[in-house]
Amino acid sequence: MRFVHERALCDSDDVGDGTRIWAFAHVMKGARVGKNCNVGEAVFVEGGVVVGDRVTLKNQAMVFTGVTIEDDVFVGPGVIFTNDRNPRSPRMALVGKRYEKEENWLVRTLVGRGASLGAGSVVLPGVTVGAYALAGAGSVITRDVPPHRVVAGNPARARGWVCACGAILPPELVCASCGTRHALRGDALTAAG
Amino acid sequence: MRFVHERALCDSDDVGDGTRIWAFAHVMKGARVGKNCNVGEAVFVEGGVVVGDRVTLKNQAMVFTGVTIEDDVFVGPGVIFTNDRNPRSPRMALVGKRYEKEENWLVRTLVGRGASLGAGSVVLPGVTVGAYALAGAGSVITRDVPPHRVVAGNPARARGWVCACGAILPPELVCASCGTRHALRGDALTAAG
Amino acid sequence: MRFVHERALCDSDDVGDGTRIWAFAHVMKGARVGKNCNVGEAVFVEGGVVVGDRVTLKNQAMVFTGVTIEDDVFVGPGVIFTNDRNPRSPRMALVGKRYEKEENWLVRTLVGRGASLGAGSVVLPGVTVGAYALAGAGSVITRDVPPHRVVAGNPARARGWVCACGAILPPELVCASCGTRHALRGDALTAAG
Repeated sequence: MRFVHERALCDSDDVGDGTRIWAFAHVMKGARVGKNCNVGEAVFVEGGVVVGDRVTLKNQAMVFTGVTIEDDVFVGPGVIFTNDRNPRSPRMALVGKRYEKEENWLVRTLVGRGASLGAGSVVLPGVTVGAYALAGAGSVITRDVPPHRVVAGNPARARGWVCACGAILPPELVCASCGTRHALRGDALTAAG
Repeated sequence: MRFVHERALCDSDDVGDGTRIWAFAHVMKGARVGKNCNVGEAVFVEGGVVVGDRVTLKNQAMVFTGVTIEDDVFVGPGVIFTNDRNPRSPRMALVGKRYEKEENWLVRTLVGRGASLGAGSVVLPGVTVGAYALAGAGSVITRDVPPHRVVAGNPARARGWVCACGAILPPELVCASCGTRHALRGDALTAAG
Repeated sequence: MRFVHERALCDSDDVGDGTRIWAFAHVMKGARVGKNCNVGEAVFVEGGVVVGDRVTLKNQAMVFTGVTIEDDVFVGPGVIFTNDRNPRSPRMALVGKRYEKEENWLVRTLVGRGASLGAGSVVLPGVTVGAYALAGAGSVITRDVPPHRVVAGNPARARGWVCACGAILPPELVCASCGTRHALRGDALTAAG
């Protein structure tokens, strides 16, 4: 069973069990949303988007064609995804031809499992946000974010490391909250149990 | 008498006289909104929020649980409050326990009397914005803002002082618009009549 | 013929042929919107706004009184315009008089033909964005942007030049995409055929 608020619009027939879609949200035809997600008020999910299971899309988040969001991701309120590096009004005669085919303009974005995008973040097209990464509120994400990385600012810069559980990691990379140990090899942090 | 637009949702029974709630806005059960407020289009006010009298919430502002807004505050269009320092999708098994109790994650925010938050500002959890402070459009407010302080940027930094009437103060701290004199003691500015 | 989604509100009688207004959008009385525009979901267009032909207003863009948008402009998702340099809640007794007349507070903004404002941009009041300029996603536009200029950041700074077709120009100012040559005289770039 899924729940669609009477003031929401759900045109997709590919929304998983246990997912709730709140007022003024719109999940368009051709969008795929997994199980047990929360699609907050006034959220927009365009056709072609793929959203995993247990994802939280907070109020007013906008997810456009070309974006894939893996399981357990948190997308904060007002987060905006993008999919065109050189946006122009497609109705302008000069660029009409460019917008005839998606391959001319569409750039894809991926948000890895368990990552969090803070309130009001803007995600530039083509970016990959690694698993369990955390973008602080107000981040403008212009480049790839490695797994477990904390970023913040405009443009977003690295600020530290974060555990899958959400706690910021101390320099020794052992989580003070859940006890998970992590190992850093080059730029890659992994949980070591 | 209060006004609720036919396309708005008001589930709260604690909204003051003279307050107007516009289309696509939602004031949830358990939210308290004072008298003579303006709740703009598509504004979201969650349960547990307290809003004073004569407050303006411009379009699409989002006010979540844990936020208190005193009298006469201006919350610009698209302003986003937050209430969790380490947000994760509450549906992720790893963090399910954390989200069982508000005390595990909820951080409170206060906006003092007569303050203004410019368009698109993002307010980090736990911040206090002082009375009559002014955050410029696009501010990301990561720390407390003293009364009458002007801040701007990401992160927001001090840029000057502002009179209660909204005019930026010159170095001598006498308002060119309303004539109010101010005195600075340490970091604290007060109106001196 | 124009199209107004059944969940949209259009109170203006000055919307051009071929324009489509999508769900949860609101075009207020007194707003003028040209022909063949796309007014995305949850967009807000206030009375007094003038929008040209073939303009794209992406989801949740907010356009307030005092803003003029010329033909062929792209306004990205979540873009916020502003119109008051010293915003206070108009309901606060101290400033009631100021808000009695528009001339006391209203500052006008212009977006020139064919320009693009990236996702989540915030436009300060009084700014002129030149024709075919491009503001990157997340820009906070605090000053005028010359024609064909690329800006990005908070505050937005110059980053290069862009062709009317949307391609970033190389140092020699000949567009690699459409072949248009440009000439730079002082701070002004013009297409030279």
